Amino acid sequence: MGIPGVGKTTVISQLVKTLRRKRLDVKHVVFGSVMLDQALRKYGIRHRDQLRTLPVISQKRLQIQAANSIAKMKANVLIVDTHLFIKTKEGYWPGLPFEVLDALEPTNVILVEATARDILQRRMRDRNRYRDALDEAGISTELELARTMLATSAILTGAPLLTIQNEETRADKAAREIASSITFA
Amino acid sequence: MGIPGVGKTTVISQLVKTLRRKRLDVKHVVFGSVMLDQALRKYGIRHRDQLRTLPVISQKRLQIQAANSIAKMKANVLIVDTHLFIKTKEGYWPGLPFEVLDALEPTNVILVEATARDILQRRMRDRNRYRDALDEAGISTELELARTMLATSAILTGAPLLTIQNEETRADKAAREIASSITFA
Amino acid sequence: MGIPGVGKTTVISQLVKTLRRKRLDVKHVVFGSVMLDQALRKYGIRHRDQLRTLPVISQKRLQIQAANSIAKMKANVLIVDTHLFIKTKEGYWPGLPFEVLDALEPTNVILVEATARDILQRRMRDRNRYRDALDEAGISTELELARTMLATSAILTGAPLLTIQNEETRADKAAREIASSITFA
Repeated sequence: MGIPGVGKTTVISQLVKTLRRKRLDVKHVVFGSVMLDQALRKYGIRHRDQLRTLPVISQKRLQIQAANSIAKMKANVLIVDTHLFIKTKEGYWPGLPFEVLDALEPTNVILVEATARDILQRRMRDRNRYRDALDEAGISTELELARTMLATSAILTGAPLLTIQNEETRADKAAREIASSITFA
Repeated sequence: MGIPGVGKTTVISQLVKTLRRKRLDVKHVVFGSVMLDQALRKYGIRHRDQLRTLPVISQKRLQIQAANSIAKMKANVLIVDTHLFIKTKEGYWPGLPFEVLDALEPTNVILVEATARDILQRRMRDRNRYRDALDEAGISTELELARTMLATSAILTGAPLLTIQNEETRADKAAREIASSITFA
Repeated sequence: MGIPGVGKTTVISQLVKTLRRKRLDVKHVVFGSVMLDQALRKYGIRHRDQLRTLPVISQKRLQIQAANSIAKMKANVLIVDTHLFIKTKEGYWPGLPFEVLDALEPTNVILVEATARDILQRRMRDRNRYRDALDEAGISTELELARTMLATSAILTGAPLLTIQNEETRADKAAREIASSITFA
């Protein structure tokens, strides 16, 4: 997990490489894409942005269905790339509500963080991609919220929580830190 | 939700007006009053302050019963005015424990905030009403606790969380912000 | 509860004395020791440090079994000395996940805190005992995490949360504060 602009995608792709080099059977899945697949088949949605136009009740149903379909995936290591919350018109919508956590049963919950300054710069560089806060105070609030939600996720699932600092241009280091702290069955 | 002195009551009454002007069928209920009604009938309690003298087990039971009776109310928009926690001799007692959230199934969880300074001034002006912290550090701790509990409520219910800053004498603005962010079925 | 170095053990032993002086039937149990007892019988574990070498799934099972066996204990006042989290190689492992809270059904959740400075000094004095953060920033993060987890525990159980500041050499004062705020059935 990680708030937008934290560099999560890069860290995860480095992590997948690192783990595959250790000959682990790694599967990597993006929660939002699984939701979109379900939406395509069930609601005729064609683009990610249309997801937000669905009634909340349908979005919630898609969220649970995505969680259930991910829970059935088989791999030694299953990495689920997701958000603790999504910024919407109605506020911060939890990406991992209790029902989703209950379906996923994660063995570990990992949060990628970065400094508010680094996140701000990444968001400024790519304004089309991010619809999130564009000042350091707003970003600090989001980092705080992510930490709180991570702690709640750990308590609900019993999984250990890990927070990794992603320094600019050092995504490989963050990935190695994750790889070395997790015990793989 | 909102900690005492934040101006929650005024924001809610403005919100009710705003929504009724939009011809929405709005019902507004104060959680504590529903609890008191139940207590009147079941325990012969006559005044809100007597509630606190009941054994915790009875208070908890009343809390669940109030939640169940609110859950049965019918309206397009049902606004429940409640506390994330109540300061008691034993510490901060959660106003929305899991069992209550589970009964209420809120579609949105909204926290009204204000600066610690504004809250302190309101509490100082009306000392009889508030039995809460009377210094800025204590108020900041309570604001922090409210935010944490709000995030937990969002995860347990899957509802989006919204935090609204209530500026002194601008309750109407806060109410409009809430009205424009919520999608009404 | 309380993070390592906060002086929790001393506060609890003072609290037990204070309550016994009031002729209360007090039982005091250390969660980790109950887990160790179970591990001894079931996995042939001989030393607390070996617990950490067990697969996480076995540790989780032991945690639930310990909670269930504590839930069966009888006393007017049952004090459970435990951690909100344990620092492990995989990150912060929750000591009171939902399943454990559900089994324990605590009537009160109490966190002993101290200043980051006092905690740091205690950890520095006894480096063999603590494997936790050894700088003030790290300790502040742990205090923050403990507060967040405490709030989540309160919401999941409906129990009031209490935070007690333990000043250096004043454990007796902290114990009296706890004793006077809790209502004993």
